[in-house]
Amino acid sequence: MGLVTCQISISLDGFVAGPNQSLENPIGEGGMRLHDWVFATASWRRQHEEEGGDDGADSEVAGEVGKGVGAYIMGRNMFGGGSGRWDHDWKGWWGDEPPYHAPVFVLTHHARPPLTMQGGTTFTFVTDGVATALKQAQAAAGDRVVGIAGGASTVRQFLATGSLDELYLHIVPILLGSGERLLDDVGDPVLEPVEVVASPAVTHIKYRIVKRAS
Amino acid sequence: MGLVTCQISISLDGFVAGPNQSLENPIGEGGMRLHDWVFATASWRRQHEEEGGDDGADSEVAGEVGKGVGAYIMGRNMFGGGSGRWDHDWKGWWGDEPPYHAPVFVLTHHARPPLTMQGGTTFTFVTDGVATALKQAQAAAGDRVVGIAGGASTVRQFLATGSLDELYLHIVPILLGSGERLLDDVGDPVLEPVEVVASPAVTHIKYRIVKRAS
Repeated sequence: MGLVTCQISISLDGFVAGPNQSLENPIGEGGMRLHDWVFATASWRRQHEEEGGDDGADSEVAGEVGKGVGAYIMGRNMFGGGSGRWDHDWKGWWGDEPPYHAPVFVLTHHARPPLTMQGGTTFTFVTDGVATALKQAQAAAGDRVVGIAGGASTVRQFLATGSLDELYLHIVPILLGSGERLLDDVGDPVLEPVEVVASPAVTHIKYRIVKRAS
Repeated sequence: MGLVTCQISISLDGFVAGPNQSLENPIGEGGMRLHDWVFATASWRRQHEEEGGDDGADSEVAGEVGKGVGAYIMGRNMFGGGSGRWDHDWKGWWGDEPPYHAPVFVLTHHARPPLTMQGGTTFTFVTDGVATALKQAQAAAGDRVVGIAGGASTVRQFLATGSLDELYLHIVPILLGSGERLLDDVGDPVLEPVEVVASPAVTHIKYRIVKRAS
């Protein structure tokens, strides 16, 4: 079975979203600053058929994102569309061709038929919890990676239950001061830094999460 | 004038001390885990006339600590001895020969005559605030570095007032879950990672703090 991994941008003070998240501003005030480094890379721009961008370490890291991922899991807030019963016109933030190109399992309390999008992305809505979503994603991924796409509370659930094998943090040297923390209330996992990539903008640290004997 | 710097060990979730700090346990529950990496190094052991220890990146980093520092500033809690008026028998945690080997300026609300210790460490007690302590330390250091020794609230004051030039974080891959955070309520300084040293145990990131035009 493939690894269960998560890669996410985080401020130096530990936030993955700014304060006052809303439907209009889903990553909160200042939260977009966490992602500026991606948009500045040549690899991201090539993927989005734009010119220019910077080569170098950040571009290499951004270019690796999604490689080897056979299925994703995300929380309802990351898929968007508000809480409660579904507005079936809402098909995610990403337009007709989302950037996942793989099966995506969306955690929700409200059932909904699967959605098939262009470019190989399918959204399947899972109403009976994280463990079921993980099983379905692993079945879909085969020996490829299951990527936990976010948001923070979904990542925290996987960390807290010991289901995550790898956490790849892109540490952005900004302080958001408030917002949503990634690493609160997830217990005391054993983490080993296994890869560090440094650029003038961001420090990328990949942690392996050591499984405790059960 | 020399740079004003701080080097400090921090958990991946942002704490520099664990919860329930007390006179008996000044860095809180679990806080000592932040410093295990230092005690494991060959350079620390050599400095303390002990055998063994690991060579490698962490040892090099630990061996550089204190080099080029001409004076230190620390908060009263780091010097210890409780709050309120001084018990003059208290001369810090470090015995007759503290590891500073330089003038140390201690921020306090309670006056006390200077203390001259063995090995070149002197403690001078400063009752009129951070700016005065910095002036005195810079005068003592000349063109050498002024090191902000800690604790967290002292470092925060220097960060918040824009007085710090360099912050060297030793990011220890543990989660303390609660305790004292280093980077809360310090505003929005502009940080640039200028040096990253990775070991299997710890990721050391040196940030330059960019001065804003005033």
